[in-house]
Amino acid sequence: MSPAPDVLVVGSVALDSVRTPFGAAEEALGGSASYFALSASHFAPVKILAVVGDDFPAEHRRLFEGRGVDLSGLETAPGRTFRWRGEYTVELGHAHTLETQLNVFSTFHPRLDERHRSSPFVFLANIDPDLQLEVRRQIRSPQLTLSDTMNYWIARKPDRVLEVLREVDVALLNEEEARALAGETQVVRAGERLIEQGAQSVIIKQGEHGALYQSREDRFVTPAFPVEALRDPTGAGDSFAGGFLGWLARSGRRDGQALRQALGVGAVMASLAIEDFSPRRLVEASHEDISSRLKVLHRMVNYELEAAFPPDPS
Amino acid sequence: MSPAPDVLVVGSVALDSVRTPFGAAEEALGGSASYFALSASHFAPVKILAVVGDDFPAEHRRLFEGRGVDLSGLETAPGRTFRWRGEYTVELGHAHTLETQLNVFSTFHPRLDERHRSSPFVFLANIDPDLQLEVRRQIRSPQLTLSDTMNYWIARKPDRVLEVLREVDVALLNEEEARALAGETQVVRAGERLIEQGAQSVIIKQGEHGALYQSREDRFVTPAFPVEALRDPTGAGDSFAGGFLGWLARSGRRDGQALRQALGVGAVMASLAIEDFSPRRLVEASHEDISSRLKVLHRMVNYELEAAFPPDPS
Repeated sequence: MSPAPDVLVVGSVALDSVRTPFGAAEEALGGSASYFALSASHFAPVKILAVVGDDFPAEHRRLFEGRGVDLSGLETAPGRTFRWRGEYTVELGHAHTLETQLNVFSTFHPRLDERHRSSPFVFLANIDPDLQLEVRRQIRSPQLTLSDTMNYWIARKPDRVLEVLREVDVALLNEEEARALAGETQVVRAGERLIEQGAQSVIIKQGEHGALYQSREDRFVTPAFPVEALRDPTGAGDSFAGGFLGWLARSGRRDGQALRQALGVGAVMASLAIEDFSPRRLVEASHEDISSRLKVLHRMVNYELEAAFPPDPS
Repeated sequence: MSPAPDVLVVGSVALDSVRTPFGAAEEALGGSASYFALSASHFAPVKILAVVGDDFPAEHRRLFEGRGVDLSGLETAPGRTFRWRGEYTVELGHAHTLETQLNVFSTFHPRLDERHRSSPFVFLANIDPDLQLEVRRQIRSPQLTLSDTMNYWIARKPDRVLEVLREVDVALLNEEEARALAGETQVVRAGERLIEQGAQSVIIKQGEHGALYQSREDRFVTPAFPVEALRDPTGAGDSFAGGFLGWLARSGRRDGQALRQALGVGAVMASLAIEDFSPRRLVEASHEDISSRLKVLHRMVNYELEAAFPPDPS
């Protein structure tokens, strides 16, 4: 089998300080591109487009390299790396940001080389939609593009966020973001509304309730993988994206069956990410860990429907 | 094929006045036993154990009889029928009770005759857990018993609610109730905790997010059926219960496949209930309506998982 095609991610590489009811991490590896890359690296070769400061620890570089992640697009700028400090309360799922230092990220401007421009699979992680569009338009003929966003951009640049949605194959949003952008309370209706507004397809992430995929032709869901010990929800969405896009790159398919499998793989990778602080579990997980979780998830939803309605006994 | 075995429900038959953003109903047929019975009646013969006042409209009786529901256990007491008045705000799903008049229901004491005591399938709808236990203990050798409850009883009689959970085969709760009773925030953990506390199996209803089934041996989920027009969420849970238990009665099976199908049927019946005020859609729905929704729901979750993990391309 030939190697899976490359996956490119543009996003943040950061140092996160996180506190949850189950522990804390100080200046741990974080950022959307980091979680995505380490997740997708289980399935396909990954290239990162991002920027760090000259204080970025060498051990984090080695962590990426140990997973085969291509860092030639990881620019080192004079100054400090992007830092985020946050905490989660008992109702895990909602982060309270205590401090954001954009540092070198504030002037980040992705520079794509020839190999980046020919990437077949692309993830536009949560950055300014203007940058997402700029990168998207430089990619020559991608097979599949995936985007993410956040409430911050939906509140400030809703039109640009919608423009991104129209220019990618699959747009990832969480429940709250989908409701805000679509102006619809029910998640299913919000998904339909985004399609009407020009999105090709959307995945609405619903935390412990799983995720919904919606396109013009198809609609399906995956439950979340039931984790025994949720320790830190940071990076769940980007790890989901890494599993989803990485799996599609590796499988070489894009039919309904492959999309359903990819959604399940996304849920599995998200479950690994949240079981420990920083992307530690994503790095340590074996193919066997991933396979066995995918089988469990499959059993949670799959069944035979012999007769849609048994014969009327009366 | 012989007729499906009887299903007995003990609960309320009420007159509901409901207002939602999409309309209003005045003194419409309501109550847990009503929704359950009309839902389950599509699959099996149903008997109601309940009480109404002497003001209960004859047209509602005819509605039940038109669906073959046995009303010999529907007592008529001197006085007024149980009335509930509520409204739902934009965030449908949470009802605000404006007025509850228990009326004849306040002294309701179920009287079971010989045929009731030999019912193979029993639903203990949301009533005082002491009454649920009293009824449960009079049923001789049921094949399957299902219970429901509400926050009101969990707050006042948690031990009795847990006693009911231990004495039935399947306990239905919504998300909020499961969290409150189990003392766990995450729904999956709440389900596990209730099993540890002695429940045989639980179904946790999650509104637009579907439902989770959890037993000692198995765990699976169904999404909600995506309705185009949610008009009135009243009765969703009882309609779900009617589809679930009615389907199991009709199928004569209780294996994992049948339970998964029954969960899907429950979701379909709930979706019909909430598309209009009062149980109108439950009455009007044809077998074809139910079948086609079940197929849609099945397509939303089902897929082939040929290889849990494709060969490593590296």
